[in-house]
Parts: sequence; C-alpha cells; structure tokens
Amino acid sequence: MEERKVFLDNRPWEEAREEFLEALKNIGFLHPTPGEKIPTQEALGRVTAEAVYAPLSSPHYIGAAMDGIAVRVEDTWGASEGFPRRLVLGKEAWVVDTGDPLPEGSNAVIMLEEVTFIDENIVEIYAPAIPWQHVRLPGEDILAGEMLAPTNHLLTAFDLAAFLSAGVTEVKVRRRPQVAILPTGSELVPPTSNPLPGQIIESNSVMLASLVRQWGGEPHLFPITPDDYDLLKERLKLALSQADVVLINAGSSAGREDYTARLVAELGRIFTHGVATKPGKPVILGLVEGKPVLGVPGYPVSAALCAELFLRPLVYIKQGLKPPEPPEAQAILGRKIASSLGREEFIRVRLAQVGEKLIATPLGRGAGNIASLARADGILRIPRLSEGYPAGAEVKVVLLKALEEIQATLVITGSDDPLLAVLGDALRKLYPGKGLAVAKVGSLAGLNVLQRGEAHGAGIHLLDPASGTYNVPYVEEYLRGEQVVLVNLAYRQNGLMVAPGNPKNIKSLKDLVRKDVTFVNRQPGSGTRVLLDYHLKLQGLEVKDIHGYEREETTHLGVAARVALGLADVGLGIYAAARAYQLEFVPVAVERFDLCFFREQWENPLVQDLVKVMASEEFRKAAQRLPGYDLKDCGQIVWKNF
Amino acid sequence: MEERKVFLDNRPWEEAREEFLEALKNIGFLHPTPGEKIPTQEALGRVTAEAVYAPLSSPHYIGAAMDGIAVRVEDTWGASEGFPRRLVLGKEAWVVDTGDPLPEGSNAVIMLEEVTFIDENIVEIYAPAIPWQHVRLPGEDILAGEMLAPTNHLLTAFDLAAFLSAGVTEVKVRRRPQVAILPTGSELVPPTSNPLPGQIIESNSVMLASLVRQWGGEPHLFPITPDDYDLLKERLKLALSQADVVLINAGSSAGREDYTARLVAELGRIFTHGVATKPGKPVILGLVEGKPVLGVPGYPVSAALCAELFLRPLVYIKQGLKPPEPPEAQAILGRKIASSLGREEFIRVRLAQVGEKLIATPLGRGAGNIASLARADGILRIPRLSEGYPAGAEVKVVLLKALEEIQATLVITGSDDPLLAVLGDALRKLYPGKGLAVAKVGSLAGLNVLQRGEAHGAGIHLLDPASGTYNVPYVEEYLRGEQVVLVNLAYRQNGLMVAPGNPKNIKSLKDLVRKDVTFVNRQPGSGTRVLLDYHLKLQGLEVKDIHGYEREETTHLGVAARVALGLADVGLGIYAAARAYQLEFVPVAVERFDLCFFREQWENPLVQDLVKVMASEEFRKAAQRLPGYDLKDCGQIVWKNF
Repeated sequence: MEERKVFLDNRPWEEAREEFLEALKNIGFLHPTPGEKIPTQEALGRVTAEAVYAPLSSPHYIGAAMDGIAVRVEDTWGASEGFPRRLVLGKEAWVVDTGDPLPEGSNAVIMLEEVTFIDENIVEIYAPAIPWQHVRLPGEDILAGEMLAPTNHLLTAFDLAAFLSAGVTEVKVRRRPQVAILPTGSELVPPTSNPLPGQIIESNSVMLASLVRQWGGEPHLFPITPDDYDLLKERLKLALSQADVVLINAGSSAGREDYTARLVAELGRIFTHGVATKPGKPVILGLVEGKPVLGVPGYPVSAALCAELFLRPLVYIKQGLKPPEPPEAQAILGRKIASSLGREEFIRVRLAQVGEKLIATPLGRGAGNIASLARADGILRIPRLSEGYPAGAEVKVVLLKALEEIQATLVITGSDDPLLAVLGDALRKLYPGKGLAVAKVGSLAGLNVLQRGEAHGAGIHLLDPASGTYNVPYVEEYLRGEQVVLVNLAYRQNGLMVAPGNPKNIKSLKDLVRKDVTFVNRQPGSGTRVLLDYHLKLQGLEVKDIHGYEREETTHLGVAARVALGLADVGLGIYAAARAYQLEFVPVAVERFDLCFFREQWENPLVQDLVKVMASEEFRKAAQRLPGYDLKDCGQIVWKNF
Repeated sequence: MEERKVFLDNRPWEEAREEFLEALKNIGFLHPTPGEKIPTQEALGRVTAEAVYAPLSSPHYIGAAMDGIAVRVEDTWGASEGFPRRLVLGKEAWVVDTGDPLPEGSNAVIMLEEVTFIDENIVEIYAPAIPWQHVRLPGEDILAGEMLAPTNHLLTAFDLAAFLSAGVTEVKVRRRPQVAILPTGSELVPPTSNPLPGQIIESNSVMLASLVRQWGGEPHLFPITPDDYDLLKERLKLALSQADVVLINAGSSAGREDYTARLVAELGRIFTHGVATKPGKPVILGLVEGKPVLGVPGYPVSAALCAELFLRPLVYIKQGLKPPEPPEAQAILGRKIASSLGREEFIRVRLAQVGEKLIATPLGRGAGNIASLARADGILRIPRLSEGYPAGAEVKVVLLKALEEIQATLVITGSDDPLLAVLGDALRKLYPGKGLAVAKVGSLAGLNVLQRGEAHGAGIHLLDPASGTYNVPYVEEYLRGEQVVLVNLAYRQNGLMVAPGNPKNIKSLKDLVRKDVTFVNRQPGSGTRVLLDYHLKLQGLEVKDIHGYEREETTHLGVAARVALGLADVGLGIYAAARAYQLEFVPVAVERFDLCFFREQWENPLVQDLVKVMASEEFRKAAQRLPGYDLKDCGQIVWKNF
C-alpha cells in the first residue's frame, strides 16, 4: 500500500487563517479585484472600485420647486389680503409646475394655493414674494465636482439614484470575486431522487455557490470529478485559470482517495492541513499559482463551516470590504453541553424566546446533518480550552435567523408527531411570519423542559398504567404546584409496524417474544415506550424475551425506517410513520396526544394563535392527508387546574 | 381652465395603509402569489409555496462514517492492546472510506488510526468494536416523509443542501411579486450626462426597481410616459395585465399635469390621496381591476419613503412573508430639531459613535436631496403630534447602515474641504471598512459641535484678525480648559472665483464694491467669511457697499456654482472649487486648514489610522489631483496643549 499521512494538523483555526491571510497579503493577493465599468442601473450591491464624482449639479438648472406661478419679486411688492395685486399671465406671471425651468426674468414662485385665477389672463396674489422663494437653485442637492461615494463602498438603491441624478451613467465597480467550486469523489452523483446505495447526492456545491453569491462573489460550478488524480489536476489547473479562489470539496482528509493535499503540495504549497475545530477539522489551506486553493471536507456541515471560516473573508476582502460581523445574541443554555478540550466546537442551537429569556438548546451535532443546520437558529462556539458549559450558563450565540423570526416561533418540546409539522405549516399559512418548531425529547423529558422554562409547550401522550388514563396523572405528579392546561391535539392510532406483506406474520404484542422476531424500541420516557411496557405487563410478557428491546430510536419515523430496511422486523409506532415507509400496520391502541402549557404561556398570544389554527379549516383539511388521527377534540381544553 | 383639486387629504399614513390593506384583504389580493416549480439549485432567497417533504432518507443506505475497516462485531471480540486480533482483509475486514456502503455482513467500522496494516492481507486491531460503531444508518439525518420546510419559508443555502440530500430536485416557490414601475412626466429624460434645462433625469425608477428587488419582488420598468392622459391610461392598462402591483411615479399631486389621481378614479377607486407625512405627502393609494395602483411623488426622497411605507408591505405579503422590522438603535440627538404639528416627519440623520454615545445629527431635509439619503445612516421619525425634540433627547433611529459600519466611521465636523473627501477615500482604500464622513457646519460652529462631544474632530481654518495667526487663538478661547491637538491638513489657496475670461475684470477685493459687480458670500462663522471680513477691514472696504454680501452659500462649491451660473459675478473660495466649475481664480491668501481633536478622540485608534493615511503615498498622490494645496505639514501636530 502506498504511504499515507493519516494524522492531520490540529492548529487553532484563527492562527491558521491569520498565517494564510498574511501569506496571501505578502504576495499581493489581498488587493481588491480590478474595476469594471457597468451601467449605473445594474450596480445594486456592487462595490465601487474608485471614488464616484458628480459630473453634473443637481438640480442642473433654475427650476420651480412647487406648482404655482413664477413672478418677478418686484411685481409683487405691496400685495396683501386687503389689497391684492393682479398680475397679467404671460407677462408678469407664468404658470409653472414643479420642476419647470423658471421663465426668463422671474425670480420667485408663488404656490398655487395662494393664487386666485380671475380669468384666463389675470391672477390675483395676496402677499409679496421674496427672491428665490420656492425656486430650486442648481447644486442645491448635489454640486458638480462633489464626491458622491468613496472607493470600496457597497452601493445601495439610493446611491444609484444619486449617481443618475448627477449624470453618472456608468460606474466602475469591483469585478465579483470568482470562486471555482470543484466537487470531487467517485461516490458523488448529481442531484437525483433515485440514488443507488453507495451513491452520495452532491448537494454541497449548490450550498457553497449560494453562500458565495450571498457574500458578493460569483461561483463557477465544475462538474463532479471522480477520484482520479490526473483528472483532478487538470480541472484544478483550469479552475486556477478562471477563478480568483478555488475550493475543492471533498478529498481534504487523509483517506485512501483523498487527493487534494497531495495535489496542492505537488503544484504549490500547503499552509495548513487540519484545524482544531469540530466539525471541519480536515481543511486544507493552500496556495497554487499565487491563488488560494481550499480543500474542504465532504460532510455538509463541515463544508459550510470551513467555507464560513476560510472562504468568506477572501470573498469580502477581494471586494474591498471588511467581512461583516455576524449578528449575535445573549442566550441561556437550556441543557449542559460537553465538549472535548483541544478543539473549538461549533454547535447548532435552537433558540426559544420564553418570557424574558432567550433559551438555547443544542441540536444534533452530526457533521452530516445538514437539515439540523437548516433548522438551526444560531451557532454556539465552545472554545478550545473549554470542556463545555453547564445548564443555565449565559452564552453568546451567532444568529442564523433574525431575532424577530425566532421570537415569533413557538417551541414545542416533548414528543414529536408528524401532525405537529402539519400544524406548524398551517400556522405559517394563516399567520405569515409565525412558526412552530419541535424540540423532540420524548413526553416525560418534555415535562421537565417545560418545568425549566425552556419551551412554550410540550407534546405528551403519557399513559398512566395504574388508571389507564392519559397525561393528567403525569402532569399532577411531575408539574405539582404549577398552573397547567392540557389541550388535545389528536387521538392517534398506535400499532405494530411490519414489513410489506407481514412476512413474519406478526398479529399482536405476543409475537414480539418469538425467537425469529427482531424488535426496535423507542427511548425510555417516550409515550410509546410507556404504552408498550403497559401492554406487555397487561399481557404478562417479559422484556428480556424481546430480541432488540434494547435497540432504541427517538422518533416514529426512525422506528419505521429500521423496519423498512430490514434492520428489525417490527416496531411500535403511529400509522402515519408506517404509511410513509409503505409498512403494514397492526393497530394495538388509540392514544391521546395533548399539548401541555403553563398558564403563563397559555396566555401568550402566539399560543392562542396556535389554538385558533387547530380549529381552522386549513389545518383540518391538511391533517386529513395523515390517516390514523381523530381530531374530534383537537384544540379543546381537556384539563386545566386554574 | 379645467377644474382641479388643489388640496390633498392629510391622513395619518398608518390609518391610510391599514384601510388600504383591509380593502385589499377583502378582495382576496393579500393571498400570496401562486407557486411555480423551479430547480432546487435556483431557489436561494425564494419562498416556499407549499411544505417540502423528504422523498428520501439521508443517508439512504448503510455506510461508513469514517475511513477505516469494516468488520463483523463478533470477529473483534477479545481484542486488546496486549492481545491484538488479526483479521484477514477481504474476508473479515474490508477497507472503507467515509461514505462507502458497508460490505455485506459487516456491522461496524474501526477507524484507520486504530488499525495496523501488517501486510497486504492482514490488519491488526486493539479493541473490540460495538455494533454500528462509525456507521451511518439510513435516516440518521433526514427521514423519508419528514417535513423539511414549511410553507412561506425563505430558503437559505442550507435549506437547498438539505433538500438535495433528501432527493428534492424541484421546489414549489412563490412567484416573485411583479411590480410595474411607470415613470411619467414630460420633463423626464432617461439617464444622461447632458440634460437640457427643464429636463429632469429619470433616476427614481432604477431606485424603486432596486428596492423592489431587495424586497424579493420583480420590477417591470416601463418607458417614460409624457404627460398625456390617454397614453398613461393605455400604459396603466398594460401594466395591470402584467403585474401584481402598479406604481406610477410621479404626477401624484394635484398639479396641472398630475393625471394619476384622475386616471385611478376613472378606472377604479382611490382610497387615499395625500397623507400626513413629510416628505411623501402627495401619495395615491388606489385600486384598479383588483390590483393596487400606487401614485408616488416625483421627489426622490418622497418616492423612496412612499415605496417604503406602502409598497414594501405588499411585496412581502405577496411572498407569504411578514415584512421584517428594520433594525433600530437608540441615539442622542445632537441638535434641537423642530417639526410641524399635524404630520409625521422622517428626518435623515448621520450617526456618530463618539465614546460611549451614539450621536444623531439631522441631515438636509429637502425631498429632492437623494444624495443626503444615500449618505444617511438612519431615519428619525418625529410623530404627528410632536413639535420636535430638544438637543440631547434620546431618540430611536431606524438604521440604514450596519451599526458596525457606523462605528468604524469618523465624523469630522466644522469646515468642509474637497480634500477631506479625498482623505476619506484613501482611508477606505487603506483600511477597508473604515470611513470618514464630513458634517459641514463651518469652522466656528464645528468647535461648538466638538465641545458638545458630537463629532470626532473638526476641520477649521480660522484666522485671528488681531494676530494674523490661524486656529490656535480660537481653540484657546472657545475650547478653554480642554485638552486639544491641532493637526495640519493643508495650506490652501483662497481667492476670488470669477467667470471664465473674467468678463468683469475683477482683480482684487476692491472690485467687490463696484456697482456692476454682484458677490456671493459664505455663511457667518465659516473661515472664509472671517478671512473676507479681515481683508475687507484691512483694506478699509465697507460690507454695505458689496452687492450680494447678504446672499450666502455654505460650501465652496456652492459659491462656485452661483458664479458659474451667472447668479453672481464673484465669490471667495478655494482653487479646487473654482476648477471644478471651470472658473478663473484670483488668489487672495493662503490659509491653514487644521483638524482639531480632543485628547480623548486623538487616542482613538480610528483617528490614529486617519493620521497614518495623511502621511501615506496613496493620499499624497490622490491629493495632487486637487491643485492649490500645500501638504508640507499634512499629518503633523501643529499645536497641542497636553
């Protein structure tokens, strides 16, 4: 086997970036791109490459500033309410509209409202005019020769209007920085809905191109290059001839077919291979033919982070701009978060404005989970020399969404159900700008989160095995002393999900203890788990006899996916999940799914809007597409203690 | 003459807008635009027209999560550092890269770093594996059937990546709201550098189109329609057939050729004609063929404000979005500002971060002055029932620029000089992101502004008539007790500006008292005025004998413009201004232009950067293009008292 470097550097990313920028500065790369002349009307969002001066004054002639009559001041002397003066139209007074050039010989305008037209030839005025009254003099707004905008200025709609008013019809702006994006990997396929096993849909280049565009650059998307050293080399050279910066994605690590580092080392110089971040560690900062070549990892969250840390500054600097600081907010950490010493971790968080507090809750940390980045409200950074933060810590969060949007989003913790997404969708339709986010932790844990004031409500379906009733006994026990309301979301069918055709012939819970049957479970504390245990006990079945009882998923869909993939024969879940995976469904029970709110949040207008949506035609209709639900009590208060 | 309505309504704009939106809601207009399917890769910044569900799980197959070897867990039992186990490649262990499908029969991956390759066939491992270790299971990140984004969601780069990963290759997004923009007015001409008197450059439609684009809409720019009722009617009908909203600019007032109101009344219904705002009063809110038709005034600042108040909400609502709240900041008002009762005034302000305080200083209030809107950092609203605010009032300002940019901008008050713009330009070139703004009030007033802590520095050129020296006596008198430093900017030539060819044969100040000579003056307190008065006194000339002594301009360029236009024969000013207007220049004196800083601001790194720029080659070279300046002491401390 050929020799490979298997250990990467582990440098602080700021240090790596600084060294890289310093090297780029020394070779003159950080000079902004040259200017190109474009029509002023197309320059929105572009950056000036030189100062813009006004060739013309604005206004450029003497004109009326109001609709009215133009007069000679001398002809108006002595006019008053008691002794009006009459002026002859066309000789002593001229009707003018705003913007009309002042007729020769006149030097003031009297407003229409202050004039009476006696007949076609005569007007009457009631006060003398003063020189230049209601007249716009050349240069009042812009003076010829004035600097309208300096170099390196990001052009706004108002700048363009000012330029055009002053006769600037072309403007020299920075050429957009050109960023070549080279997706590489034999496993990659272009976006498709039918990938084969082992094929990975290449979605990073669209994400990276979109980011480059947002930063003001122009992406060049290259086709996928398979793991072929020579082809990649050829494409890299082509990219270098077309672009200011080249980004190779992925192959930046030290795997068997990770060619980027070798290639950059062959053609140029590597400054850094590996930084102390999570995600994003296997990044390459290199220089080939005087241009930066970045190798970024293939996991989408890693790719996004590396682009943010190392590409974004280049795109701004090449435009002559300082990379803007992202907006931040102070938040309170909902739960403890641990992190390894020695690397800076970037954690996606959900933010919830609960009363006065902005609560940050960590989301999934997997580098592959781009959906969690799409859903994240912010990013929490845990420094290299920290092992994390305790629950309740006050932390700074970089915002990915507007605080306004976050504050208009209800966060429902507890158990998840696909119906909640449908409800959130209906909320957005009926109340644009408002939203619903689900932070799924299971029913019981949800009550805990609610207790700590970290969510607006909780979805629960907790069966009390002693009484056979739902939710109320749990609320009374776990939320003792609190003022609480339970609102029904739905009654839903729970059952066993099995492969199409039910090949193992599973008819009831009794079949779970069969030797040839593999089960997949839900996590402890989830309502489904409680339901399972209740029924197992009722039927005298032992959990130790169930093969796979200890294998857990945290959602209904997760359970369904396992069964669909043959990783398990059966799981307990809801009809909607079974249907999404074309599984067969053996009903076991109907359970009640309620939303639980503290009184304080119940009175939150956003929660009241949600309850209105639960009663709406819009939601009822959309919910029909999910079978297995009975909405007869949906939106009704089923219990409250205040 | 035909009858015309000359008085407009004067309704509170919020009331007018609410009534209008209510009417639009009632006819169903506020429903978001229908959806259109577009490729996911083109959907950045678009808004979902329906919820997006995942057709595929991600990952969609069982794959390696790390580079390493795939193994059967059972084959690894018992391995330890002391008793490694050896596995046969291709039979018990398979080399895999991240993303590779797991070879059949394997159910865990051991990382490359934890494996030793003994030879081509044998690997050694040092610890047992646990099931599914370093394996990615289908649906770990996204589960088929999951809702990836709700309706009315603004799509980000991360959303697009998540969609593609889950096999969503097309997405149904809101059609961009179509906004037709009809510029109208016989005086309008398309952008040009050579307008004739009476021609107004049509710059509003580019500004309005740019705003529409920023809000997510798609502008349709119509050609200029002259003041021709039937042609405008024809164009309006065409626009209504193509667009969701039509904006007619201008002709919205009640002048002779203001046809918009008549036209809207003929074809549909007018809800409001005139709101109680300044600027922006003569706005028309109308409805024709079930679509909103807005008439907005021609002055660019009025047009921008009306679009912001009445068009922006429509563009957002039609996309299914809530119009975002603009960012705001608390500021302290630098000087008293008066406003009339009965209308809400929108005042452009400059913001300066001086020490701990963010100071707001009102800019020009003219509705025609688009350059002042381009330069403004924010907008201060003075409510209808307020007569204004005293100096020092704490006010809320809507930000037009990022606070970060405002905080990196030095505000120099006092006297203006074109060299300061050149200096600011050099600062931006050498320190991207940093800037210099000039708040010209004249030299003496500048010391006052400095005293009140409302600017970082002041430009002054104040001759002490008693001693014949510059600046120091004034600082000692007006800034008594303060720690102050004076840094020279330049020595500049001051002289008389006269028309080309010097038709009145003006040779010295003595010619100013000639009966056939008209003068234009600078405002009291300006250095130029002091200089003039000093020399007049020296030469025994009387101001009462100077025709035009009382006519004042506040800048050198203003004086030059008057002379260039023949509105005056002569004015006192600087060479650069004379040159900009191709005037002849009769030198009268060399004066010293210093920058004055308090010690606290002198120690501000931004001020120190500015001083470095004053010494830079970049600035020196750029300054050479402005003749009449001697930079021998530029950037030198000429006096300090600490």
